Amino acid sequence: MINKLLVVGTMAYDNIETPFGKVENILGGAATYIAFASSNFKTNVGIVSVIGEDFKSEDLKLLTNRKVDISGVEIINGEKTFFWSGKYHDDLNIRDTLDTQLNVLENFVPKVPNNWKKPKILLLGNLHPSVQLSALNQMNNRPELIILDTMNFWMDNFRSILDEVISKIDVICINDEEASQLTQENSIWKAAEKIKKLGPKYIIIKKGENGAMLFHNEKYFFVPAFPLKEVQDPTGAGDSFAGGFAGYLTQANDISFESMKLALIYASALASFTVEKFGTENLQLVNESKLKKRLKIFTKLTKFKTELLNTAEL
Amino acid sequence: MINKLLVVGTMAYDNIETPFGKVENILGGAATYIAFASSNFKTNVGIVSVIGEDFKSEDLKLLTNRKVDISGVEIINGEKTFFWSGKYHDDLNIRDTLDTQLNVLENFVPKVPNNWKKPKILLLGNLHPSVQLSALNQMNNRPELIILDTMNFWMDNFRSILDEVISKIDVICINDEEASQLTQENSIWKAAEKIKKLGPKYIIIKKGENGAMLFHNEKYFFVPAFPLKEVQDPTGAGDSFAGGFAGYLTQANDISFESMKLALIYASALASFTVEKFGTENLQLVNESKLKKRLKIFTKLTKFKTELLNTAEL
Repeated sequence: MINKLLVVGTMAYDNIETPFGKVENILGGAATYIAFASSNFKTNVGIVSVIGEDFKSEDLKLLTNRKVDISGVEIINGEKTFFWSGKYHDDLNIRDTLDTQLNVLENFVPKVPNNWKKPKILLLGNLHPSVQLSALNQMNNRPELIILDTMNFWMDNFRSILDEVISKIDVICINDEEASQLTQENSIWKAAEKIKKLGPKYIIIKKGENGAMLFHNEKYFFVPAFPLKEVQDPTGAGDSFAGGFAGYLTQANDISFESMKLALIYASALASFTVEKFGTENLQLVNESKLKKRLKIFTKLTKFKTELLNTAEL
Repeated sequence: MINKLLVVGTMAYDNIETPFGKVENILGGAATYIAFASSNFKTNVGIVSVIGEDFKSEDLKLLTNRKVDISGVEIINGEKTFFWSGKYHDDLNIRDTLDTQLNVLENFVPKVPNNWKKPKILLLGNLHPSVQLSALNQMNNRPELIILDTMNFWMDNFRSILDEVISKIDVICINDEEASQLTQENSIWKAAEKIKKLGPKYIIIKKGENGAMLFHNEKYFFVPAFPLKEVQDPTGAGDSFAGGFAGYLTQANDISFESMKLALIYASALASFTVEKFGTENLQLVNESKLKKRLKIFTKLTKFKTELLNTAEL
């Protein structure tokens, strides 16, 4: 367990309503989903985050039970954990934020523990770009790979600091709408070209139930979403995706484009578990056998006999 | 050229407006797109359709130049060709029909020429299900494969005769919205299960820019859409897709699930040419070298080292 993945991200309590039900004050936050997803791999996962005194110790234990190192999780007494409340439409791609209480996040300055300053991979989960930048600047060595997740809100309100972060990372992982907002391009191919100029060598554009694309130089790879019969709650899908991606690469022998393809398949598989139930409930239940079953289906989904493709009589 | 593909479908003149331009009275119709797409293969393609005396002989020549047999295309003197006018929104997935003039289609009774009553494959393009049924009933032998394309309009207004057609065919090729309308299921997996019960052994559900899925018994295959930087006019994409699919299978050695995977890749490639320009303009310009270039990209898009997938340390 020498390969380390350092995750910087939020830990939260969420109220979530979807057409399939309603839950209150359940465990959430980007770092939480990322940690649950990435800890499926033989990888040492550490979190840098902040929580309030209301954070339940049983929720912390869910993480430590999975060998996630929470020494970088600061607890602020007298304050409350970050809270988010949202409601999804019948079209689960659309959601309204009903309430956001920053609480402990308001003045959060991340503190990376000394033994976490040389991770193999640094994953900057979706939160304020100044927090992302601060964590990045605390590294002793540049990690082999720095992955960034972000969202519309930061693009709208903190573009210049976000651009600084983007210029320093290797992989950006955003959805199609965010890519279009970042670049003013509707085609994800054109968007990827523009994002490349901002710095990242690898660009992942997620399309929800329609899979995700990886772009790198002139190369690209498409991973479908895992075919689900039912989706109950999309919250945390992107975080689980990023966590699966980073977790796979942390244990991989190399960080090549070929490895990233496999990382994306794991990412897509892990995200698929998350959305089947509310919050982290189903993601927590993933085990090796369940995961391998889904991996097999990815192979079946897109594999064809390449050698036959050019035998047609034209 | 003994392998025959018989296409039953409309031939039309279209007015089309999209955010990228406007064209008037251009050559259109399902059978036209299907014939252009399928005649890329070494396959004998024949059309059963109807046109008015306004139909330009130069447009017929575009088909005969490609060795498409138009002996089954009836010309009605004193009447006009089927006309359709539509306008696409900024979101090209949404379009409004501005005008439909059935003209010669109104009383169309298809007449399959005698030498076309034993095709290898019969493709029933999107038109009135009673026309589809009549053509089907004129076959001397049951074709090896019968493929059906249809749309919402027929589901809304002619469901019982459409159901009869659906019960007699092998492959149904519709888009996700149509699948959902046909079955009242939003998940394409559940929709496919329900459609299977209506008769078809193979179900293709198209998702536009998000690819297409083939379902057969417990098997499935996903083909992505070809990655385009620009789409100008989606008209005829579905017809070109069906034509590419049927054209490939007509020349293939077997009509197996494996062959259908390859057929879908050709289908997706051919549809991608169509949407890059208005009407059939770009589809007409497809040649072997252009097509093979796109096929190569499909391989790159989804191919990964399957054997590595299970080497991750979990």
